[in-house]
Amino acid sequence: MQPNDKDGVAVGLLGCGTVGTGVARILAENREVIESRLGGPLYVAAAADLDPGREKDIPLPRGRFTTDAFSVVNDPAIPVVVELIGGQGVARELVMKALLAGKSVVTANKHMIAAHGPEILAAAEKGGGDFLFEAAVGGCMPVIKTLRETLVGNRVESMYGILNGTCNYILSRITFENLSFEEALAGAQAAGYAEADPSLDVDGWDTAHKLAIAASLAWGTRVDYKSLFVKGIRRITAMDIRFAETFGYRVKLLAIAKKAQGAVECRVHPTMIPMNNLLSQVNGAMNAFLIRSDRAGEIVLYGQGAGMMPTASAVVSDLVDVARNRAGAGSGGRVPVFSCQPGAMRDLPVLQADRVVTRYYVRFAAVDRPGVLSKLSGILGEHGISISSVHQKGRHTEGPVPIVMLTHEAREADMQKALTEISESLDVVTDKPVLIRIEDDNPPE
Amino acid sequence: MQPNDKDGVAVGLLGCGTVGTGVARILAENREVIESRLGGPLYVAAAADLDPGREKDIPLPRGRFTTDAFSVVNDPAIPVVVELIGGQGVARELVMKALLAGKSVVTANKHMIAAHGPEILAAAEKGGGDFLFEAAVGGCMPVIKTLRETLVGNRVESMYGILNGTCNYILSRITFENLSFEEALAGAQAAGYAEADPSLDVDGWDTAHKLAIAASLAWGTRVDYKSLFVKGIRRITAMDIRFAETFGYRVKLLAIAKKAQGAVECRVHPTMIPMNNLLSQVNGAMNAFLIRSDRAGEIVLYGQGAGMMPTASAVVSDLVDVARNRAGAGSGGRVPVFSCQPGAMRDLPVLQADRVVTRYYVRFAAVDRPGVLSKLSGILGEHGISISSVHQKGRHTEGPVPIVMLTHEAREADMQKALTEISESLDVVTDKPVLIRIEDDNPPE
Repeated sequence: MQPNDKDGVAVGLLGCGTVGTGVARILAENREVIESRLGGPLYVAAAADLDPGREKDIPLPRGRFTTDAFSVVNDPAIPVVVELIGGQGVARELVMKALLAGKSVVTANKHMIAAHGPEILAAAEKGGGDFLFEAAVGGCMPVIKTLRETLVGNRVESMYGILNGTCNYILSRITFENLSFEEALAGAQAAGYAEADPSLDVDGWDTAHKLAIAASLAWGTRVDYKSLFVKGIRRITAMDIRFAETFGYRVKLLAIAKKAQGAVECRVHPTMIPMNNLLSQVNGAMNAFLIRSDRAGEIVLYGQGAGMMPTASAVVSDLVDVARNRAGAGSGGRVPVFSCQPGAMRDLPVLQADRVVTRYYVRFAAVDRPGVLSKLSGILGEHGISISSVHQKGRHTEGPVPIVMLTHEAREADMQKALTEISESLDVVTDKPVLIRIEDDNPPE
Repeated sequence: MQPNDKDGVAVGLLGCGTVGTGVARILAENREVIESRLGGPLYVAAAADLDPGREKDIPLPRGRFTTDAFSVVNDPAIPVVVELIGGQGVARELVMKALLAGKSVVTANKHMIAAHGPEILAAAEKGGGDFLFEAAVGGCMPVIKTLRETLVGNRVESMYGILNGTCNYILSRITFENLSFEEALAGAQAAGYAEADPSLDVDGWDTAHKLAIAASLAWGTRVDYKSLFVKGIRRITAMDIRFAETFGYRVKLLAIAKKAQGAVECRVHPTMIPMNNLLSQVNGAMNAFLIRSDRAGEIVLYGQGAGMMPTASAVVSDLVDVARNRAGAGSGGRVPVFSCQPGAMRDLPVLQADRVVTRYYVRFAAVDRPGVLSKLSGILGEHGISISSVHQKGRHTEGPVPIVMLTHEAREADMQKALTEISESLDVVTDKPVLIRIEDDNPPE
């Protein structure tokens, strides 16, 4: 127990938006159950937000609200800071300052961690406090704890995640209601599942931030999210989802990470996964995360990946971990920030997108003339891409018809070259082909 | 860091059967990755088994094996003991001795914890060491950690588990191959999924041990597994599973725990759950555990609930937790054994089986005469049980025909009284009815 903690652990809350309000409410409303588990109080001693109107949302005695977040970080009576401002500007400045002052920091700021992980790690090491971020990946699901603690005796082999509720909600509505992407996006915005500017979600970068963090933890390596192969869901149509069904697949925006070719392979893209895979049963705004490791085999986590209370629940679990560490050792670092000891961190290469090997679904739109199929498959074959099945619908109609092909495993670079050659040399192909990657090796039950 | 630990944390391994061998192998074979995470060695300093022939299975320098488990527990150079002997005899004696001597203990012995939890808790408190048992519930799935740490800010509302791989394997084979229970059991035994004496598994008691532990953690209460309502799967037939399908359900041996009627409701029985519930997609020997709580909503865990390496993986994660606690505080108790502080433990009543309220599937075998249906529903109605649907097959055949009814919610006591009256007063009912309880309120997506 730290001298400061004799009346409980004082938490400074930076950012009183949705999640910040949720954290304050859980600490207040579930105070009794938390104390019965922790053995002492854990409370918001100060809360800061630029918007003074937010004071009324936070269950807090008068005089503990401020618009000056730095005054909270500078307060020597506050040993633990929760950063829920978001972004990489002032949030990062506050986090660095708190860590260097020896405070423990809890955050849900995935973008900041994915972009500045090594710098933050160094500050946490220097200050000696904890830096915890369970809420940054998968909301209430214990992705971070499972990687850092449950699987501590395992070598992680691969990970597959549905980590963005907005995208999963949109894809579910396209799948089950035959909507267009635009219609489903509008629905997601109306239901509060998508932002006015949805690009961080639907273009895959939010998922990429989370995947970069998970890969860092799994393999004790620094992963720069900007080096990942990332495709969003804007081009997914109900037509492709119907074709996928005929082959026994669902389409999900999947985060994929594997050890492959001596490197870490990390990619985010719309992916066809077998219908009997548990992940293909994850619908609506729900998230799921599958980890395959050498001893535990397959573990799947499923839960709400976003939202006020699920995210706040994860923040509170981190706060209790910090409080428990303070009650014991009197310092942080009980569990290393990125799972392995800072000195043992290494820089594994991230597999270049060109070198990724996978199976593909390709849909061409082509004028229905004799020989089209043979020309398409001929060009693919010249680039070493062989076809496992073909589905051609709507023959003998006017205008272009869809020609769907599933390939055997092929290299991304070869596929891109073949598609370029097809679009340059075949006039009968009328539109940019739709490419969806397939993931079905060792499908989970 | 404890003085004893300067060359690493010395572990005493009691029991060198399947799981014990797995633990020793993980510590040896994944030594490098574990050290990179823990920051120091964690090694088997002594291993004990009554069978000296097992020495060769354990990767251990000569001279560290003994047939005398007490010599390991008495060794002052061994601060951490892993109990993998099983049962409640010598295993319990060794665990109590080790805890009272101030050592930390890790075990997978669910039966011992379910039967002697309070006594063990008292010994751990007195000695000051850790007592950890992640492997006791759900194998490699982090059931214990999720309840004690991830959901520390939540009030648990209900839990649903498929916690016995043997039963799930047998039910899957009955479901997908139309086998009888006996055929599926023989298959499970041939595949190594069932013991020669399968009663602990197929009669539901192994699941009951696990559920009692999970309920203790969720609500900080002592739960005696012997007071639970437990039914096994011996009477499940492919016919009932086919009928369940026509109503949109799968049949699983489900562990159910809820706060209800001011008590803890805990039961284990074959249960019909909606086909679109994630748990109904869990097949073969796999396990899954669903926790519903007030802030995190629904979390599902999925993984291998048994087997050498999945179970050993969970034991190793506990060992690393112990090592981390020793590196910090110098004592155990960082996370309370049963989730809440010992002083805050309470004795909630366990809901009497008679007072359980649920929906039922009932299959009668009855001679096909006019008026049978009206007599059956009449007696049910007199006991306050109303019917939501009826399915009658094979009319106009010789001999008894199956009559299937689904009921609305009813009290267990009323249902039992109605069935007794039916069997005593209706000669046309030729056999004991098959009763399967239905769980479909708030079905998970």
